[in-house]
Amino acid sequence: MLAKKFFIFTLKKILSNINNKTLKIINKIGMIKKISSGIYTYMPILLLILKKIKSIINYEMKKNNITEILMPIIQPSNIWKKTKRWYKMKNELLKFKNRKKKYFVMQPTSEELITYIIKKELLNYKQLPLIFYNIQNKFRDELRCKSGLIRLKEFIMKDAYSFDISFKNSIKNYKLMLNIYKNIFNKINLKFKILKTNNKNMEWIISHEFHIITKNSNNYFLCSNLNSYNINLYNTLLKFLNFKKIKKKKKIKKYIINYKILILKNKYLKKKEIWILLINKKNKINKKKIKNILNNKFKILKKKIINKIKKKKIDIFFLRNKRIKKNILIDNSLYNNKYFIFIYKNKNKLIIKNNIFKNKIKLNIIHNINKKKNKIDLNNFNILKIKKSIEIAHIFLLGKFYSRLINSKYINYNNKKKFFFMGSYGIGISRLLQIIIEKNIDKIGIKWPNNLIPFNLVICFIKNNNYIKKISYFIYYKLLLLNINLIIDNRNINIGYMLNDWELIGIPNYIIVGNFIKKNIISYKVRKKKNIYKNININKIFKFIFNKINIYK
Amino acid sequence: MLAKKFFIFTLKKILSNINNKTLKIINKIGMIKKISSGIYTYMPILLLILKKIKSIINYEMKKNNITEILMPIIQPSNIWKKTKRWYKMKNELLKFKNRKKKYFVMQPTSEELITYIIKKELLNYKQLPLIFYNIQNKFRDELRCKSGLIRLKEFIMKDAYSFDISFKNSIKNYKLMLNIYKNIFNKINLKFKILKTNNKNMEWIISHEFHIITKNSNNYFLCSNLNSYNINLYNTLLKFLNFKKIKKKKKIKKYIINYKILILKNKYLKKKEIWILLINKKNKINKKKIKNILNNKFKILKKKIINKIKKKKIDIFFLRNKRIKKNILIDNSLYNNKYFIFIYKNKNKLIIKNNIFKNKIKLNIIHNINKKKNKIDLNNFNILKIKKSIEIAHIFLLGKFYSRLINSKYINYNNKKKFFFMGSYGIGISRLLQIIIEKNIDKIGIKWPNNLIPFNLVICFIKNNNYIKKISYFIYYKLLLLNINLIIDNRNINIGYMLNDWELIGIPNYIIVGNFIKKNIISYKVRKKKNIYKNININKIFKFIFNKINIYK
Repeated sequence: MLAKKFFIFTLKKILSNINNKTLKIINKIGMIKKISSGIYTYMPILLLILKKIKSIINYEMKKNNITEILMPIIQPSNIWKKTKRWYKMKNELLKFKNRKKKYFVMQPTSEELITYIIKKELLNYKQLPLIFYNIQNKFRDELRCKSGLIRLKEFIMKDAYSFDISFKNSIKNYKLMLNIYKNIFNKINLKFKILKTNNKNMEWIISHEFHIITKNSNNYFLCSNLNSYNINLYNTLLKFLNFKKIKKKKKIKKYIINYKILILKNKYLKKKEIWILLINKKNKINKKKIKNILNNKFKILKKKIINKIKKKKIDIFFLRNKRIKKNILIDNSLYNNKYFIFIYKNKNKLIIKNNIFKNKIKLNIIHNINKKKNKIDLNNFNILKIKKSIEIAHIFLLGKFYSRLINSKYINYNNKKKFFFMGSYGIGISRLLQIIIEKNIDKIGIKWPNNLIPFNLVICFIKNNNYIKKISYFIYYKLLLLNINLIIDNRNINIGYMLNDWELIGIPNYIIVGNFIKKNIISYKVRKKKNIYKNININKIFKFIFNKINIYK
Repeated sequence: MLAKKFFIFTLKKILSNINNKTLKIINKIGMIKKISSGIYTYMPILLLILKKIKSIINYEMKKNNITEILMPIIQPSNIWKKTKRWYKMKNELLKFKNRKKKYFVMQPTSEELITYIIKKELLNYKQLPLIFYNIQNKFRDELRCKSGLIRLKEFIMKDAYSFDISFKNSIKNYKLMLNIYKNIFNKINLKFKILKTNNKNMEWIISHEFHIITKNSNNYFLCSNLNSYNINLYNTLLKFLNFKKIKKKKKIKKYIINYKILILKNKYLKKKEIWILLINKKNKINKKKIKNILNNKFKILKKKIINKIKKKKIDIFFLRNKRIKKNILIDNSLYNNKYFIFIYKNKNKLIIKNNIFKNKIKLNIIHNINKKKNKIDLNNFNILKIKKSIEIAHIFLLGKFYSRLINSKYINYNNKKKFFFMGSYGIGISRLLQIIIEKNIDKIGIKWPNNLIPFNLVICFIKNNNYIKKISYFIYYKLLLLNINLIIDNRNINIGYMLNDWELIGIPNYIIVGNFIKKNIISYKVRKKKNIYKNININKIFKFIFNKINIYK
């Protein structure tokens, strides 16, 4: 490929309103061009990366005998009405009326459509299980499109859907997909956290989110060495704060970030230094036990206050620590009654322990953890942190939710029609692209994971010399024949600028053809080694490069 | 790949309302699933073919250093208003209003957007020329979606756009793209006709259409051994017929097919046997010359009639032949004033000659051509036929039409801003898929062109025998390792049904593992050779297949 034709024109100036380092680099390289809020064109280099990601996905899917189909973007509204998502997603759905006054949805996802397609096939149990996947543009009428490719009106999603005859079988496929997605992200060297999510939603039974930790986000989650949870702290607090109906929601957010827990302002409480324990209503806790454990260090607040709060939907215990002047929020409402969470005010650390009351772990441990001379066996704990993260994949065990609503059935061994057990498995490809770049930025640009390197080699040559040009193109074409994935820089700029650009873009190997060609010498350089050039005789260049690049592969 | 997972479930019954043979086969194989009028899901086998076509296109583009970008589907309405296509295409455009009440277009094509993107780059002349291509879903609010993938609401298009600094250079790119498209269609063994189109439209200067001859169409074009022309006879006639405002448009169509030219019914004419000549207004024709040439055999109609007609947008001359009682329509309005077309009434043959008047070719030749004892040198003529066809690609030399309207400029060597010279090059991928199938149907199914074979080999084996199953999968996995593109039929049906399905789908090679495995024998069969099986010892099967498939490649 020729650099000019491939549109390698890095920008000298970057829009001053971009603070995000990743977006600065993406824009400087010219990887995307903004068309409108949340709508972008993918320029050649980013499209190259996109295709490499697609081929990794395709490979993993094929290996597991999962088959690709291509569903349309525009879908009749009636199936969206059947699942009520036409109404639930109302403002978020992009829809239109055609000239025959028929409504269509521009798909944000495809549960409805695939369930409808499979319904019409009238499959029998012998033909199951089936998993299909689909890589397609999706749409959402986002109000606030921000952060480049993270929150978009038009985005690329890889989704998959499983169809099973039983709950047990569908869990098997769910686990399969979970593992395949792990493999996919491992293949692109992306460190991810898998979060368990709560099952409050009617639409699914189990759900896991794949998150990437990043400061460039407003989403929070809890993670330890062992587990990650999508604690939607913000929502929990909001729920709690409904008591007081505080209007300034922006403040709440700020408080969460700083762990100045807003509960302090709750009208039932007057003092500032208060421990707070939130416990799910379903959780039957022996109050005496709590008292026993906690009494040394905590004081349960007056019953009057507690009772007032207890009338609300979640049980709330306010505990006041006598010695430690720190605030703690204890919340098990999100973790199926298995966990309690303690949030410290000063340090961004959290401790979580499986059903702490049953294990009779004393709460002073929680205090000690914050001290420097720590004698606690940390193996009993998972130290949790609240991290900002971005969700890149979300998988759902759907049960019969969609098959029931779409009336999608298979024929069982008794010749009876039964609803499918389904699963749904999405990867946000567009945002994944940006996250990959963010996670691979170094001081001079992008250092791509091996599987995603756009070109393995670039040939830079001095212009205005026909002999040098000829030699350079000769090397280029010969290396192409050797199946080396390379580009030649035919732009009329000096070598220094060229190398800066390619280091920014993240090409690992460089050949420089300059005046030393008179002595049959060509320079070779590796990315990030500023002034270390290796002189190679032109006769040896092909063997040299062939060996080098194979190592890189 | 496993047949069950790949959703190989051919239908036993085909919808009785499908008359088209191609659609019958497409539906029987289950290649597409209809979602709504003009909206389809591409099932695994068709998607496989689609991917193969894409990779052929990608290969040809890359070879010519043409770079792929990915433009969004939804585009702000303002650029569409600038080129007036928002108003011109009004009912055909699919559009919507988002929740902020901003209008968006769902792209039917991308001239506007690419011109806008390139405008913002502020390129200089050294960075040009550039060609970009884009494979993306496109949309049209079609009133009558018919014939499977031919006329769709949502379709896949490959489009390309060229940007040049001069008219001359842009012609160079236009010719390049014309040749690349020829290569692409040649690679999939598709016989095409390239039609020159008229330049009546403001939006382009030159345009060529790629057509495939098919009976399953309502479009007509003229083709000879040398050239093809998109004579839009129907439209020309309609224009002419406006004089009389005949309402029964269906009749006109019928007349064209039979060459009973409807002009006979024109109110200005009373006799039935009349020659008609249509000449473009721009064409300055020496009437004396015409008279000289034509006078022997033709009589120009009374001036009164001619003048009446001349007030209309096109100049029309009515010529009456004295001897030959045949009707002729002569029309040069469509061919840049270079051609005249003669249509004979009796036989479906036409003769076209480059600027007949300049060459002083006598019109009696046209008469003679119809006689059996023909002494004319046919090399001077191209015998044309009217054929039904489907357009699969259309390329346009756009000049400065879009760059002017979008105000898209580059900086020339004088540091002045100048409008781009552009070209636009589209391939209708969705309909191409259907046409390829239509052109490759044989008596038992589809015989794919070599470059598009979905799988080279299928392994069929008898079920309910564990040893046979094991051996079959052993062969399958070993051939996979040998990089053979194959599928194993794990459906629980008998071998006869399996083979019928695979012959229908168009797999060229079959291995059958049955009871002969006791004697270490496996059967091998080629498509279309019904009962000719070759017995192969299991030890020799891998070498045998490896050699066979390589021949097929």
